[in-house]
Amino acid sequence: MTTRADALKLDSQDAFAKKRGEFYLPQGTIYLDGNSLGVLPKAAVARVKHAVDVEWGTDLITSWNKHGWWTLPRVIGNKIAHVIGAAPDSVVVADSISVNLFKVLSAAVAQKPTRKVILSDSGNFPSDLYVAQGLCTFMNDGHSLRVVEPEAVLDAITEDVAVVMVTETDYRSARRHDMKAVTEKAHAKGALMIWDLAHSAGAVPGRLDEVNADMAIGCTYKYLNGGPGSPAFVHVHPRLQSKVMPALVGWWGHAAPFAFGQKFEAAQSIARMQCGTQPMLSMQALDAALDVWADVDMNALYAKAQTMCRLFTEWAEARCAKFGITLYGTRQWNTRGSHVCLRHEQSYAIMQALIERKVIGDFRAPDMMRFGFAPLYNSFADVWDAVDVLHNILETEAWNKPEFLAKKSVT
Amino acid sequence: MTTRADALKLDSQDAFAKKRGEFYLPQGTIYLDGNSLGVLPKAAVARVKHAVDVEWGTDLITSWNKHGWWTLPRVIGNKIAHVIGAAPDSVVVADSISVNLFKVLSAAVAQKPTRKVILSDSGNFPSDLYVAQGLCTFMNDGHSLRVVEPEAVLDAITEDVAVVMVTETDYRSARRHDMKAVTEKAHAKGALMIWDLAHSAGAVPGRLDEVNADMAIGCTYKYLNGGPGSPAFVHVHPRLQSKVMPALVGWWGHAAPFAFGQKFEAAQSIARMQCGTQPMLSMQALDAALDVWADVDMNALYAKAQTMCRLFTEWAEARCAKFGITLYGTRQWNTRGSHVCLRHEQSYAIMQALIERKVIGDFRAPDMMRFGFAPLYNSFADVWDAVDVLHNILETEAWNKPEFLAKKSVT
Repeated sequence: MTTRADALKLDSQDAFAKKRGEFYLPQGTIYLDGNSLGVLPKAAVARVKHAVDVEWGTDLITSWNKHGWWTLPRVIGNKIAHVIGAAPDSVVVADSISVNLFKVLSAAVAQKPTRKVILSDSGNFPSDLYVAQGLCTFMNDGHSLRVVEPEAVLDAITEDVAVVMVTETDYRSARRHDMKAVTEKAHAKGALMIWDLAHSAGAVPGRLDEVNADMAIGCTYKYLNGGPGSPAFVHVHPRLQSKVMPALVGWWGHAAPFAFGQKFEAAQSIARMQCGTQPMLSMQALDAALDVWADVDMNALYAKAQTMCRLFTEWAEARCAKFGITLYGTRQWNTRGSHVCLRHEQSYAIMQALIERKVIGDFRAPDMMRFGFAPLYNSFADVWDAVDVLHNILETEAWNKPEFLAKKSVT
Repeated sequence: MTTRADALKLDSQDAFAKKRGEFYLPQGTIYLDGNSLGVLPKAAVARVKHAVDVEWGTDLITSWNKHGWWTLPRVIGNKIAHVIGAAPDSVVVADSISVNLFKVLSAAVAQKPTRKVILSDSGNFPSDLYVAQGLCTFMNDGHSLRVVEPEAVLDAITEDVAVVMVTETDYRSARRHDMKAVTEKAHAKGALMIWDLAHSAGAVPGRLDEVNADMAIGCTYKYLNGGPGSPAFVHVHPRLQSKVMPALVGWWGHAAPFAFGQKFEAAQSIARMQCGTQPMLSMQALDAALDVWADVDMNALYAKAQTMCRLFTEWAEARCAKFGITLYGTRQWNTRGSHVCLRHEQSYAIMQALIERKVIGDFRAPDMMRFGFAPLYNSFADVWDAVDVLHNILETEAWNKPEFLAKKSVT
């Protein structure tokens, strides 16, 4: 495994290689940012055109029935349930991941009125922490967010914890929590368990029901290729669907939404996690994007992901360690998600130089270059070539130029 | 004004007639449901195609900068500010109307900790009442929603009211509240004022700053033609933008969203009303849809709306009163929005027969047929022809058939 030919040989043996043809991959680009925004599935193009021309343009308001707008959030939810290891009718698609976290978090806190602690960890995506902080500030009654190191989560689950809210896959280190152990400990201490699957869904095998999770959220624009800002998902285990009540409710979560009654009566199903009207163009793109997942063996896909992460790291270290590149996170590949962060004090400038050469990853503060490997469409040649470009940049000091050192980016 | 020729003459004098060409109007259909879902602007078609093919398909994650995704919610917000009578940089587009109501309502309640009443009226859209009920149930500390008749709102604003939350234009009667009187009374009694502009934005002149409103919300898929489920808007007066703090916050409302700090620090601007990542395909369609509004004289547009509502009612009454059709709501046309509800005990079946004949309005429980007149693209001939079809259905009892009496609809 030391030449490009080795990478090509792996591609020739890759059971997922045929899936690559179902996506538009930008010409001349090595796209390793599917963990921020997945590429465009070919099926989504025709679907969006149909949604604009026929559904909006011609059938207009009748599309609620005629084109299934009304049931789409639950139809898509069931497609995602298959990927994240949840039961049918336990997932619905709506709103953003932050809004959905607010729903399940407020619902969880209301279930445990005598407990005042929301537990999370410092590896969680910051916005999740913001959501919890916003909720606690608003409640203003002693509720607080307790943030510990990821390794300390298990021990921090004590009997004052109302809800444990952690992200399975760390957005920088890619470290995966032991979902089973954390969920069991939460339940043993009487807390509810919320999993954020943002960097997991579509990359690692879904295990929500296997680990007996209570609620979960996740986004669909990363490995699931739903499109920029596509609506997020929210899962509630069937045992809780008629019990938990989010602070944020609306007409689409009503038991009889078209009766236009003045009193809110929550649907006795996952539908109560819906609130307002959803963006149907983005929703249709997502629905089309998910059809590619119907026949995917998630264990096999994750095996490919691990190999990609391992080879990328080995190749990058072999050729670039001498320039100060180091791995952030563990080498136990079966405890990681499908991205790799490399550290370097000039990561920002190096990433700009990579992007200039059409190797697309992203910078994560303070000093990381993040590369996401979407096992459904990235090839081993992509992995080799990305390392090759990185090596070339470092060797020639191409990154050390004013235009790269000065650039600013919002992503 | 008693023949189709009269209607055609009005169309020939209509300053907005040229705008009709900027939209796709479904062939053979008289679409009078723009107050539920506006028609497709031609500009949106090309924009969505670009968003899919170029932004998502080719430029992918770099589109955050390259195609302005990052600033789009505020760019669109400024286009809407022009329509609703608000200052620049006081409107942002994000999420659904229910989610935005939750943001401003929770922010308002937090500003008035000693007051426990949210005041609204029975003419408000039910989902708004649900949002308030959900918030009060969650708070569980004595906060309650007080719902009075629309005519009783002014007198009901007492010193225990934290926030007055009403919809300007009633979704059934089209009755408009006196925004100035209600806002002044709210302020006189020390309450905050939230306006829902759902059935107003794009139909009646925007007056938010003129009446000194505190906060407002509204949807963009009705008269603004943003597309099915397009993101909603939220307005906060500049004097409050750095003071009010919603319970629901997220990364996009952070002062430094890409620093990935663990502590939420709210942006000192309207941006703090943003929360999670937004659906960019729907967002781009909305942005394109709004360009048609740049040169619209809202007072002239509203004058046309009033004439359409008046003529529709007069024509319908002249020809259909004998079949039991009556107007719901006032005849003071300058105190109404741009839709008309007609009552009949068989409204549901009659509306099905109308839809069958391609006159698209909608049924609203318990006994109303609602017709929305989008003055930007509906013609006076549309108004005449709709009455003509209605009259024909009633005269022939075409509505009184099993297929119409039995049908069920979700919209």
